Amino acid sequence: MSKFWSNKTKSIEPYVPGEQPKDKKYIKLNTNESPYPPSPKVIEAIKNAANGDLRLYPDPNCEKLRETIGEYYDLNKDEVFIGNGSDEVLAIAFQAFYNPEEPIVFPDITYSFYPVYADLYNISYRLAKLTEDFSIPVEQFLTKNGGVIIPNPNAPTAKHLDIDMVKKILDYNSEKVVIIDEAYVDFGGNSAVKLIKDYPNLLVIQTLSKSRCLAGIRIGFALGQEALIQGLNTIKNSFNSYTVDRVANAAAIAAIRDVEYFNECKNKIIATKAWASEAMGKLGFNVIPSEANFVFVSHASISAKEIFLMLREKGVLVRYFDKPRINNYLRITIGSDEEMKELIEKLKEIV
Amino acid sequence: MSKFWSNKTKSIEPYVPGEQPKDKKYIKLNTNESPYPPSPKVIEAIKNAANGDLRLYPDPNCEKLRETIGEYYDLNKDEVFIGNGSDEVLAIAFQAFYNPEEPIVFPDITYSFYPVYADLYNISYRLAKLTEDFSIPVEQFLTKNGGVIIPNPNAPTAKHLDIDMVKKILDYNSEKVVIIDEAYVDFGGNSAVKLIKDYPNLLVIQTLSKSRCLAGIRIGFALGQEALIQGLNTIKNSFNSYTVDRVANAAAIAAIRDVEYFNECKNKIIATKAWASEAMGKLGFNVIPSEANFVFVSHASISAKEIFLMLREKGVLVRYFDKPRINNYLRITIGSDEEMKELIEKLKEIV
Repeated sequence: MSKFWSNKTKSIEPYVPGEQPKDKKYIKLNTNESPYPPSPKVIEAIKNAANGDLRLYPDPNCEKLRETIGEYYDLNKDEVFIGNGSDEVLAIAFQAFYNPEEPIVFPDITYSFYPVYADLYNISYRLAKLTEDFSIPVEQFLTKNGGVIIPNPNAPTAKHLDIDMVKKILDYNSEKVVIIDEAYVDFGGNSAVKLIKDYPNLLVIQTLSKSRCLAGIRIGFALGQEALIQGLNTIKNSFNSYTVDRVANAAAIAAIRDVEYFNECKNKIIATKAWASEAMGKLGFNVIPSEANFVFVSHASISAKEIFLMLREKGVLVRYFDKPRINNYLRITIGSDEEMKELIEKLKEIV
Repeated sequence: MSKFWSNKTKSIEPYVPGEQPKDKKYIKLNTNESPYPPSPKVIEAIKNAANGDLRLYPDPNCEKLRETIGEYYDLNKDEVFIGNGSDEVLAIAFQAFYNPEEPIVFPDITYSFYPVYADLYNISYRLAKLTEDFSIPVEQFLTKNGGVIIPNPNAPTAKHLDIDMVKKILDYNSEKVVIIDEAYVDFGGNSAVKLIKDYPNLLVIQTLSKSRCLAGIRIGFALGQEALIQGLNTIKNSFNSYTVDRVANAAAIAAIRDVEYFNECKNKIIATKAWASEAMGKLGFNVIPSEANFVFVSHASISAKEIFLMLREKGVLVRYFDKPRINNYLRITIGSDEEMKELIEKLKEIV
C-alpha cells in the first residue's frame, strides 16, 4: 500500500492468471493453451512482417484483419472489433455498455476476471448461482438488470448452454447488451454468431489464444451489430489508438485464413478429450462432459488439492481454484495425446 | 448514438491520431515516426520468436525486458513497468495514481490524449496555460492538485523544460505523483530518470515508437520507484494479464540492447533537424527550437492550414491542429535527409 496510489488501486483485487513457471519443464495443462504450434502460415506471416515498416504505426482500425474475420463468419467488417487479447476486448466491452448504477448479471462460478472488470470500472453486479450440477440457471438472467455476461461454454466448468436458452436470455434482455464469451466455443460448443443479425443486443467475444494456437500473440475479437462495434471503438480510441501491432495483425490474418489447420488441431483436441475423459472416469474421476479444450473433474476419494499438489510434484501442472463450491475440482487442459497419456499414468500412481 | 451504449460511451470524445493514409504514397511527416527502420537485430529477434512457442501465453510480467531496460537506465527491474505502447502505460497510470475528486494539472497545449484519459476515468483536471512563447508555466504547477503530468519535451511545441524546473515541481508536489512523459526525450532533451532515486513521486514514461524506430510493435514503459510500479501492476492485472505478446517482447529486448544503432539513428535525426530548421527559417518560417523529432512552425504570411492543404496536395503529410492558439502552426516530423529536402522544395513552391 502506498500513499501515491489512487483509491481504486488501494481497493481492487487483481485477477491472478494460471502460473507460467520458470523453475523447470512441466507438462503444462493449467492455462488452456493449445498443445499444437500455430499454423506454419502464421510463422511465415510473422517472418514476412519483420521488416522496415515496423518503424510505422500499425493500422489503428485493423481493416484487413476485420475483413478477414468478417468473411470467415459471414459478417461485414463493421461488425468486427479487434483487441489485444479477448481480455482487453472484455474490459472495453464492460466500459462501453455497462453503467455503474445498473447491476449486471453473470454466473457465480465463471471466469474470475468478470468481477475484477466490474470493480475496476465501478459496475455493480449480481451473481447467478449455478445449479448443483453446474448448469447455467437461465431464469436468473430473466430479471431486471444492466446487462448479462455468460461464457459459453462456461469456464471452469466446461458446460455448454443450449442456443435456445441463449435466445431466451437475449429476448428477455432486449434493451441491454448480452455478452456471450465464446473463448472455448470451437471445441464442441454451438456459437451464437448466427444470432447476430437478429439480435442488436448480442455481442460475441472470441479469441485466437485457444483454438488458433496463438496465446503468445494476443488477439481477441468481438462480433456484433455495427452500433455495438462503434461503442467498443469509442472506448478503445479513448484508451489506446493502436492496440494491435503490425506483427500480431499479420499473424492473426494468416491464422484465420488457414481453416484446414484450424480444423485439424481442433479435431485432434476433441478426439484426445474423448479418450482422456473416459480414462479419467475409469480412475474414479467424475468428469463433467466438456465442450471446451479442458475438463473439470473431481475424484471420489482424494481431494482435488492433494491431487493438484502431487501432480505438480510429478511435473504436471493443472489448475486448482481454492474457492467455495469448486475447491474439490481440478481444471485440466487437454494437451497432446502424449501429454494426456503421461497425465493418466501420474493419476494412476496417485489414486 | 445507440441505446446500448453506456453513459460514458455516449459522452466521451475519443482521441484522433494522425492520419494513416491508404489512398496513395505520401512523404509521411505527420505522426512522429522514425524515417529509419528498426535495428537489424530487432528484425532477427522477431524472426527467431516466430516459432511453436507462440501457442503459449507470454510472460505476463515481462521479466527479461524489464531487466534489460533496468540495466540500460541503471535501475532495478522492479522499477520498470512495460505496456502495449506508452498510451496504454499512460492510461494505466491515470487510473493507478489519480482520484476523481482531486483535479490533476497539465498544460493547455499538450498531448491531446491527456484530457481523454481524464474523461474516461472520471478524473477532473485543470489546464496550465502555456506562456505566449509556449513555455511551461512552472508556477501554475506549484498549487494544490491531485497530480501533475507534463511531456518533456512538450508536444506539439517541441519545447524542453529544464531539469531544475522539473525538480521544483517534484518538490512542491511531494505527496502527489508527477508524470514526466518523455516520449521525445532522446532527441535532445534532458531526462528526469536520474531523479528517480530521490523522488518517490516521480514516474517517467518512455516509448520505443520514436527513437527506437518501433511504432509498429507497440512497446512503452514507465520508470519509477517500486511502489509506483506496483500501483501500475495492480491496475494492469485488473485489466489484462498479458498486454505484451511474445514477439513484441523479443523485439523490444533486441532494440534496447542495440545501443549503437539507437545512437546512430537519433544522431542522424538531430543533424537533419538542424539543417532543415535553418532552411525553413530562410523561407520565412518561425521554427521553435526543438528538442524532439519534430518541429513546430508557423509562417509569417501564409496560414498553417493553407500550407497543410497544399503540402497534402503535393504528397507531403504534416500535422495540423485546428485548435485555439496553435491553429496557425504545423507540426512537422523530422524525416530522412531526402524527405526533408523534398519538403523544403515543396515549401519553396508554396511560400
